[in-house]
Amino acid sequence: MPVFTETSSSSRDLRVLPSFAPPLPRLAAPFERNDKNEEKYEVIVVGAGPAGLMLSLLLSRYGLSDTSLLCIDAKPSTLKSGQADGVQPRTLEVFKSLGISTEIEEEGCQMWQFAFWNPSSDPNKVIERTSVVPEVIPPARFRYEATIHQGRIERIMETDLLRYSERGIVRDTKVVDVKIDEEGDAEFPVLITMATNGVEKTVRTKHLVGADGAHSVVRQCMGLRLEGESLDHIWGVVDMVAETDFPDIRRRCGIHSPAGSVMIIPRERISTGEYLTRLYVQVPGDVAPESDQIPNGAESIKSEDARQRRSKITLEGILKQAADAIKPYSLRPKENAVDWWAAYQIGQRVSPEFIVNDSKGIARVFIAGDVRKQVSAGQGMNVSMMDSYNLAWKLMYQINGLAPEPAGPNSPSPLLDTYQTERHEIAQQLIDFDRKFSTMFSGQMGATEGLTEEEFQQAFKLGNGFTSGCGVEYPENMLVIRDELDDIKSKGPNPVTGTDYISGILRPGRRLLNVRLLRHADGWERDIHDDMLSTGRFRIMCLTSTDLLDRNSISAKALEAVTLLEAQFPKSIIEQIILHPRLHRSFEWDDVPTCVKQQAEMRFYDGSALDDAYSIYGVDPAQGALVVVRPDGYVGIVACLSDVQRVGRYLKQCIRTVSHN
Amino acid sequence: MPVFTETSSSSRDLRVLPSFAPPLPRLAAPFERNDKNEEKYEVIVVGAGPAGLMLSLLLSRYGLSDTSLLCIDAKPSTLKSGQADGVQPRTLEVFKSLGISTEIEEEGCQMWQFAFWNPSSDPNKVIERTSVVPEVIPPARFRYEATIHQGRIERIMETDLLRYSERGIVRDTKVVDVKIDEEGDAEFPVLITMATNGVEKTVRTKHLVGADGAHSVVRQCMGLRLEGESLDHIWGVVDMVAETDFPDIRRRCGIHSPAGSVMIIPRERISTGEYLTRLYVQVPGDVAPESDQIPNGAESIKSEDARQRRSKITLEGILKQAADAIKPYSLRPKENAVDWWAAYQIGQRVSPEFIVNDSKGIARVFIAGDVRKQVSAGQGMNVSMMDSYNLAWKLMYQINGLAPEPAGPNSPSPLLDTYQTERHEIAQQLIDFDRKFSTMFSGQMGATEGLTEEEFQQAFKLGNGFTSGCGVEYPENMLVIRDELDDIKSKGPNPVTGTDYISGILRPGRRLLNVRLLRHADGWERDIHDDMLSTGRFRIMCLTSTDLLDRNSISAKALEAVTLLEAQFPKSIIEQIILHPRLHRSFEWDDVPTCVKQQAEMRFYDGSALDDAYSIYGVDPAQGALVVVRPDGYVGIVACLSDVQRVGRYLKQCIRTVSHN
Repeated sequence: MPVFTETSSSSRDLRVLPSFAPPLPRLAAPFERNDKNEEKYEVIVVGAGPAGLMLSLLLSRYGLSDTSLLCIDAKPSTLKSGQADGVQPRTLEVFKSLGISTEIEEEGCQMWQFAFWNPSSDPNKVIERTSVVPEVIPPARFRYEATIHQGRIERIMETDLLRYSERGIVRDTKVVDVKIDEEGDAEFPVLITMATNGVEKTVRTKHLVGADGAHSVVRQCMGLRLEGESLDHIWGVVDMVAETDFPDIRRRCGIHSPAGSVMIIPRERISTGEYLTRLYVQVPGDVAPESDQIPNGAESIKSEDARQRRSKITLEGILKQAADAIKPYSLRPKENAVDWWAAYQIGQRVSPEFIVNDSKGIARVFIAGDVRKQVSAGQGMNVSMMDSYNLAWKLMYQINGLAPEPAGPNSPSPLLDTYQTERHEIAQQLIDFDRKFSTMFSGQMGATEGLTEEEFQQAFKLGNGFTSGCGVEYPENMLVIRDELDDIKSKGPNPVTGTDYISGILRPGRRLLNVRLLRHADGWERDIHDDMLSTGRFRIMCLTSTDLLDRNSISAKALEAVTLLEAQFPKSIIEQIILHPRLHRSFEWDDVPTCVKQQAEMRFYDGSALDDAYSIYGVDPAQGALVVVRPDGYVGIVACLSDVQRVGRYLKQCIRTVSHN
Repeated sequence: MPVFTETSSSSRDLRVLPSFAPPLPRLAAPFERNDKNEEKYEVIVVGAGPAGLMLSLLLSRYGLSDTSLLCIDAKPSTLKSGQADGVQPRTLEVFKSLGISTEIEEEGCQMWQFAFWNPSSDPNKVIERTSVVPEVIPPARFRYEATIHQGRIERIMETDLLRYSERGIVRDTKVVDVKIDEEGDAEFPVLITMATNGVEKTVRTKHLVGADGAHSVVRQCMGLRLEGESLDHIWGVVDMVAETDFPDIRRRCGIHSPAGSVMIIPRERISTGEYLTRLYVQVPGDVAPESDQIPNGAESIKSEDARQRRSKITLEGILKQAADAIKPYSLRPKENAVDWWAAYQIGQRVSPEFIVNDSKGIARVFIAGDVRKQVSAGQGMNVSMMDSYNLAWKLMYQINGLAPEPAGPNSPSPLLDTYQTERHEIAQQLIDFDRKFSTMFSGQMGATEGLTEEEFQQAFKLGNGFTSGCGVEYPENMLVIRDELDDIKSKGPNPVTGTDYISGILRPGRRLLNVRLLRHADGWERDIHDDMLSTGRFRIMCLTSTDLLDRNSISAKALEAVTLLEAQFPKSIIEQIILHPRLHRSFEWDDVPTCVKQQAEMRFYDGSALDDAYSIYGVDPAQGALVVVRPDGYVGIVACLSDVQRVGRYLKQCIRTVSHN
């Protein structure tokens, strides 16, 4: 293509870079740090593990600069010793919505199947595979759980953080003390003393998030405590390259043999070309918990016996136990190929409070991640990151002045308070599930008082909504409106039919299931999740009805009313997503209300050409529905197409209105 | 998970990094640069556009260090002014096999549909949409063509290059002269003089690749010339944010109106949230080619008239022409939203020779990319990168001593010579296609002597194998063996039935179509392409037959023979991929030959559970087949399951054998 004339604009030069997430608008006064007096921030995040990194990453992407946001961590470099390795389908969805899922998808291990092994009635076999079930049972965008080194997950988040934050994580920095001191500065009431390489300084912040792990200093300083029980089972965990003739070494396995229980977790390929395997092995006998795991003031009696038992746990012992449980197959690490090993004790504890308010009732200190709960393996990291995913946009709305004015003196930050409401419920569910599942797994199958294999399988399937992260359901609160529908029958029938929420039926409090839709403008086969990226925006999804092509139809009126509604809120904070059902004829832009192209040219889809979205979501194409999807992808409210007011009432609880001139 | 014992190996710390492609083994003596005497390299790449970057990236990933490999470019920074913007499905497959496709997939524009607009018989309409067809017609892993700024494609490759090369591209460095001087140093006969910011130096290299674009200095120094014709059509091209009521502005469109022709290419979203659109607009009248586009010594007569006409082409003129052609719809750029514009002349030229040999016949200088051909829009960048993809592994095999010893004195680098054979054929096909298509498109539809719309559509569909990159077929040569099959009927029937090669029927010289397969070891639903990454390895794909579970079956013997064959070649250079058809019973590892698990534990698939691979590839499950897939993903040879010797003969032409002790 011999060009003989060429002219380009300077902005074009920037288009070689990866794109950046659009920041949220800020209605609050700009934050200007007064360098002369005191070092101040709007948010300080303590801890750069999965929870702290996720929070910092989100706040940076939403628009907090290094001036406003500080994240400190006690460790000198990216964590390399993390124990978690599983990334749930829901977490992958969130990573995808941030554009950071590819490395995990491509280089992690995808677990597609779970194999159950149990004692065999054939004495030659000892154990036998009794069934293989899908690892992820409910419909989900990612139909597997991925396993990959936790340090790598953290590095992926930190790499992305550094696109938005020049400073990144401030490392080698420990928290010495945290307290709330409103007299000194009511706007920046959190006072934190930190020490970098032994040099202490005290700074102020509007809000502080303690994501500093199980031994959290923030939690201790705030007088929050973990409550719950400790089970006595001890488990060993080993990452290694396995030498084995066990046929399912690349599947996730629950093995119950007469000699004990082993869980096999296939892991990623490493640079040698070999594949890692993680083993969880039940160590016989019980032991008392470690002292620093005991809440302040609680049972502090430890037996010398327990300490001795713990000290006796060795790699060799764990491997011997695994080898015994997997007989008649052989299983041992390849020479020099034990990557990491540890022993831990199953226990479930949760802090009843995740938030500390100031005297006016404004939420000032939050705890997230392992700080607020401790569980056995397989869930903790995912739940930790989802804590941050729940908190980040709420905190940002508060800071940027996007949250509504407080309703009254007793409820100064109702949006922030939902963090406690929503995530405490999940923590409690997690703990209940974990206690049940780990007890079951620690027990022996087929033993007199134990569970049958069928019961165990059933529990696995039931728990899968939880273990996939796709079945999480937040309780009713100002962000999750459910009941009201019954009260407004006059407006028409409930627009949603069905209760199989895990399969996609719309349900306030649950995440919107991904569906594949044909985009009207360009025929691009889109995943709806890709048009609901984690940019902190609310979405009003209009599932228009079969009357869309009629002038003055309910659908047309709804679309116009939604457009008027959207205009009452800060620009760009609400995005419209419009679906149409199968219609009786083909149509052009001219055949639908003008606002469709104006408001949603690239978010207007045929909801039946690929997936049957109406059916999946439980919406009658003849009735349609309105759905508000929160910035974190959870459905907030559902309304009849004719009831845009209901949507308006909901949004005004979540977002400040503005008057446009 | 309170851990009370933990131990990890130091190698684990490295696992936070993205993984690196495994380098190719080196049988040749290590390259040690003698710093005291002369600066020397094994390969110098001139030019860091798409062709040069792809080549440097591949050679680095295959294992050439900065000591061996140098890439220079005349420009001071990553290219920002590239005109190309389309990434074909086949190119996306290659990017995917390098782990660098995500940004293009997620942030480029995916073109799924092509809309045809033609003069309407309804006088009120002027033009009307006559049909919409899929942009990519043949089956392909990516069912769209992606559009994105060329500078961004280059930046993606350069970012990946910098993972493997500390130095990266040496910029601001022009080629002054290139010559072959065997007397001075027969092993490093290519002498290149380069100037960095005006400072000249002369260095030696074993091989040099000129990827320095249409005005290549390397080509001129080597006395190679472009041959071909120049058409007289002039086209204008504009990237802009469009303001329009044209309903298909987000689809690729071919618009033929009484007022002229316009091609619409939707482009990526930019940081403002708006979407770019590219227009190609036919400028009425003809013009003579520019002087520097005329091959040396060829027609050098230029008319003053032509120069004047070129100089008259303005942005306003192009936009006016577009606006006229799209009437009655309106089309103009949003204010200040013209990103780039240019005018160019359609012409097709190709160099008959891509390689310059030394006196012994060893290929020393190559030209790749636009250096060796010039075409109109839409193909050039893809073909350029595929030049490098074809050349890189061959060059690496030569340098690392993996190519077979030369057969005789007249053919000292037969593997390298296939670059000319294969890519000249493609360049010629490209030029023929481009001439035909651009002439057609420049002509008026429905005019007396013009094409009918049906003819144009038909040409589009036929050409789609080519424009998608998925229909490329290399001619027979030492790497593409076809005919012989008929001669060996005694070994059994041709294992492949069918001729619909574009739909996947195995065909030496064409790329292996991706299929989705269920992996035996773990139930992971794999894309076969993901187990054939661009690591420079050959693959023997055994499509075993329905007799697999019988002892001493043809399948079992073939697998064992392939394993013995593989052992004759350097370690890791050949990977086995094994499929099984639908079998009459389920089976375990013990039921198939031991070598299956030993050689291909993670590359052994059920070929019928997801896609019906046997049917797609044209292989009878009762017969099976052996297929060799080259490092660039093209099928090299197909053989009957019983004819492992045929595979052996082929591989010994491609790879040196070794004696293992």
